[in-house]
Amino acid sequence: MPLSSEQQAEIAAQRSETHTTMRATAPGMEKHLYTAYPVLDHGFVRVVDYMGDDEAICQAARVSYGRGTKSVQNDEGLIRYLMRHWHSTPFEMCEIKLHVKLPVFVARQWIRHRTANVNEYSARYSILDREFYIPAPDALNAQSVINNQGRGEVLEGEEAQRVLKYLTEDAMRAYDHYEEMISQDGQQGLARELARMNLPANIYTQWYWKVDLHNLLHFLRLRADAHAQYEIRVYADEICKLVADWVPFAFKAFEDYRMGGATLSAGALDVVRRMLKGEEVTQENSGMSKGEWREFQGILG
Amino acid sequence: MPLSSEQQAEIAAQRSETHTTMRATAPGMEKHLYTAYPVLDHGFVRVVDYMGDDEAICQAARVSYGRGTKSVQNDEGLIRYLMRHWHSTPFEMCEIKLHVKLPVFVARQWIRHRTANVNEYSARYSILDREFYIPAPDALNAQSVINNQGRGEVLEGEEAQRVLKYLTEDAMRAYDHYEEMISQDGQQGLARELARMNLPANIYTQWYWKVDLHNLLHFLRLRADAHAQYEIRVYADEICKLVADWVPFAFKAFEDYRMGGATLSAGALDVVRRMLKGEEVTQENSGMSKGEWREFQGILG
Amino acid sequence: MPLSSEQQAEIAAQRSETHTTMRATAPGMEKHLYTAYPVLDHGFVRVVDYMGDDEAICQAARVSYGRGTKSVQNDEGLIRYLMRHWHSTPFEMCEIKLHVKLPVFVARQWIRHRTANVNEYSARYSILDREFYIPAPDALNAQSVINNQGRGEVLEGEEAQRVLKYLTEDAMRAYDHYEEMISQDGQQGLARELARMNLPANIYTQWYWKVDLHNLLHFLRLRADAHAQYEIRVYADEICKLVADWVPFAFKAFEDYRMGGATLSAGALDVVRRMLKGEEVTQENSGMSKGEWREFQGILG
Amino acid sequence: MPLSSEQQAEIAAQRSETHTTMRATAPGMEKHLYTAYPVLDHGFVRVVDYMGDDEAICQAARVSYGRGTKSVQNDEGLIRYLMRHWHSTPFEMCEIKLHVKLPVFVARQWIRHRTANVNEYSARYSILDREFYIPAPDALNAQSVINNQGRGEVLEGEEAQRVLKYLTEDAMRAYDHYEEMISQDGQQGLARELARMNLPANIYTQWYWKVDLHNLLHFLRLRADAHAQYEIRVYADEICKLVADWVPFAFKAFEDYRMGGATLSAGALDVVRRMLKGEEVTQENSGMSKGEWREFQGILG
Repeated sequence: MPLSSEQQAEIAAQRSETHTTMRATAPGMEKHLYTAYPVLDHGFVRVVDYMGDDEAICQAARVSYGRGTKSVQNDEGLIRYLMRHWHSTPFEMCEIKLHVKLPVFVARQWIRHRTANVNEYSARYSILDREFYIPAPDALNAQSVINNQGRGEVLEGEEAQRVLKYLTEDAMRAYDHYEEMISQDGQQGLARELARMNLPANIYTQWYWKVDLHNLLHFLRLRADAHAQYEIRVYADEICKLVADWVPFAFKAFEDYRMGGATLSAGALDVVRRMLKGEEVTQENSGMSKGEWREFQGILG
Repeated sequence: MPLSSEQQAEIAAQRSETHTTMRATAPGMEKHLYTAYPVLDHGFVRVVDYMGDDEAICQAARVSYGRGTKSVQNDEGLIRYLMRHWHSTPFEMCEIKLHVKLPVFVARQWIRHRTANVNEYSARYSILDREFYIPAPDALNAQSVINNQGRGEVLEGEEAQRVLKYLTEDAMRAYDHYEEMISQDGQQGLARELARMNLPANIYTQWYWKVDLHNLLHFLRLRADAHAQYEIRVYADEICKLVADWVPFAFKAFEDYRMGGATLSAGALDVVRRMLKGEEVTQENSGMSKGEWREFQGILG
Repeated sequence: MPLSSEQQAEIAAQRSETHTTMRATAPGMEKHLYTAYPVLDHGFVRVVDYMGDDEAICQAARVSYGRGTKSVQNDEGLIRYLMRHWHSTPFEMCEIKLHVKLPVFVARQWIRHRTANVNEYSARYSILDREFYIPAPDALNAQSVINNQGRGEVLEGEEAQRVLKYLTEDAMRAYDHYEEMISQDGQQGLARELARMNLPANIYTQWYWKVDLHNLLHFLRLRADAHAQYEIRVYADEICKLVADWVPFAFKAFEDYRMGGATLSAGALDVVRRMLKGEEVTQENSGMSKGEWREFQGILG
Repeated sequence: MPLSSEQQAEIAAQRSETHTTMRATAPGMEKHLYTAYPVLDHGFVRVVDYMGDDEAICQAARVSYGRGTKSVQNDEGLIRYLMRHWHSTPFEMCEIKLHVKLPVFVARQWIRHRTANVNEYSARYSILDREFYIPAPDALNAQSVINNQGRGEVLEGEEAQRVLKYLTEDAMRAYDHYEEMISQDGQQGLARELARMNLPANIYTQWYWKVDLHNLLHFLRLRADAHAQYEIRVYADEICKLVADWVPFAFKAFEDYRMGGATLSAGALDVVRRMLKGEEVTQENSGMSKGEWREFQGILG
């Protein structure tokens, strides 16, 4: 159960208050506000605030194009045009603020996306909770044998048991020692900023993360992708659902042009043209390396 | 009169619609929403959207400090502490989106602040309006004789007359030729992206500008400063009024610690200590250059 | 002739000095250092400094992949892999600093690329030169009739003559008045920061522009593209030549995967698959809008 | 001893090669290139590349000010002026690339400085080494009793012994289990991206970190400060030595105006003025809170 009763009370309080505003409001997002959607065993994602909607994207685009706009295009068509032509600035006009609880090793990947604002729980200042990510049995995979940066089959039997035992026991012991070291009961107590170094990377942290829609979509493209590590992908998937309700036109265009699309190289486009003319193209006469050819087959498969 | 009747109608429409939201709402800002506040002869600033308030700053700071917060500090005290100690990330949790109409030479200074999102009216795509900034008589200053980057006394008499005549006539002629060149009446008409090059830097442009509060305050510190060019300072001054109503605690702290404060060098602090001990310190025995000493005198004056 | 004798002397002096260094050195770039390559009628691009080379990209990538690298891949193969999979951080490890002289309306487009460092000539502080961009006859195009943001045919005859006359005469007159207004001969002289507002957007400015290779390639993808305005494209084209000599493997991969490649949407990929199976696909049964279909045809043409 | 024989051989090879270049070269920095300066028990900092020197800062500043520069100022005076007046862009014209080996909990603080380029060793891809930071006895402090985010006295006797025992034994056990889990000897072997979650935050990682001088000085101001955590401060101190030899004028100005300087609020400046007039000012009649007054006394002490 990811939420403490204290957090549930806070969320209930936030959800009970409504205000009147003249700002653009996205009804699809209002219903998600403050709700903590569970992710992994103790994590969550919740929307704390947002700015703008599909219309705000169009409004900004129309400032750029002004009275010169050739025809009165509908909002969805305009948004698809912007996405297709990589016009990123109108998407930057929407902003979202999330409260996320996540394991430290996931946070370390996430923070690599630099164009965002972050306030993280400080373990220099405060005491971390005894909460660790322990993978569910079906998320306990072997190292991939074909990809150094991936997972293979799910572990089973004794091997799986031993892994779970190590992860659980080492986490509990490390936390016991963390508590003992900072305790001021009969001793001075080690500084928190030092004691935290004993804690493993599956401990949970939390932060406020604020980002504009353009950069959020870039994050989602990389992290909701099949090649992303499962433990960050589940957060990205959860955020995708929220974005789909917040800016439905933009999200639909994103799915079509980014998530479901693919970039073909000059060489790959040439091969497609040859194939369409009826030529039999093989890796050998394609001009592509084996790796490129395999990926190309994956796209057209 | 800076606003067209078309713009006034749009603003009236936006102001007439209210929505219900669960988001944090700043009552002091709601009253300003969409209103175009005039700046210079044809420009304006208007708030199109905002995210967060003073409480949102504290909320983010308290995520960082968690349960470790020593004492329940009130919001204003916490915000002053954050400002004094250069903790910038909580201020990044607020965001504002402005619609600004401004002369091109002001826009060129403004855009140097890179950490913001911008959608500007495109003169490649659309036709610019015949609107030029012509300084009011009391803003028509001579080159400063002591500062290469500043203004001296207000020009008067014939000299002032000639300047106004040149600025006005050259702008009108350039715009006449712009219109003639792009006209498709009996000719092909020059491409807009080329024709615009004939227009002087006092023509007005407009943009949507979205920025977080930390970066906005940095902008205001530099541009609401007495050394900033008058034509950008009047925009900064107008924005200051809006921020004061949006996040009153943060703005008050900003005024005290940034706008009204000063940074003293190691050497200057040493001089202050010597003076407080009763020593007579002069530029000669201060260890400061003449320029530094003059600035130091200005601070303590 | 774009270079003053003063500038030529400065460049000759810079080129005459060589130093010994232990840093990575790109021989292909050394030969370009400091040379001002002419662009447009008075502009230029010259490399003032650079950091890194193809090997530095690989070195950074190998820090990430460490001893886990499956096989000893050659540098070119690794760089192609990084480019194909959008691994941008290793390309950020190279940096370049350019000195560019360019018309103000080009500078206004250029500066929209925010992830760069810029020091521009200040017209608040200094006096601008009497140098204006006047298009060559074959760059004097009509407004496109199919694209609001583009050019059509080259203007000819009287229309072309009138455009050149306006651009030249208005620029000269504006500069004459600029000089008269700032003159301190028998008058106070208008502040430079005000007088500059009379100057049209085809006047030349100059700046130092420093950027990492990843962001430079992004700039080149957008600005060396056929849809970019001719006047910025010629700068991008010139920079492409420099980059090709600086980091030949990275530039080759960029040409193949970015400049010559194309992104297909989920729908477009589906159409390709149907076509490869022998199905006759038309716009009507493609699921694409007319605009998308036309662009799709352009890619496969 | 922080460096493996493999690393030492690599460094020796890099240091043995010299090239001829026309680029600006900083002799003070050349002597440090590639040398790994030890920090903490297994960490190091080494300069891999740099761009620019003190003169490059001035060169960029002079492009901005052009021929308008009032008098031929010497380089040091100009740099001091730029630093005093917060002109940051000329300092952005210098760039440095460091290779750093550091504990994960230090890396987590460091990465919060977003305006930098980073390539970190990937524990998804590669196997981490058995290297953990264990504090030296004199860096094993108690929690501060006056500051939630700080350290108090050094721990001694049994308490210190127990802390060292826990940190050492837990790290070794966690690493043993990490190795066992990823082993493919008689089992499938857990994916590296999962196994790493068992490792505590004092394990070492490494990265390439590239940053411009302005942002580096900002980092150093915060991290070489007495309030920074000791374990990051020792890295900042080591980098300070390198910067002092690279850009001596800029570093001297930084020390005087930033590290040794202090920002006084409007209220504090007012108090200084009253004190200089001979008035006895106390916290009670100062208008400052107790916290502000204590800090103010610290500055004037």
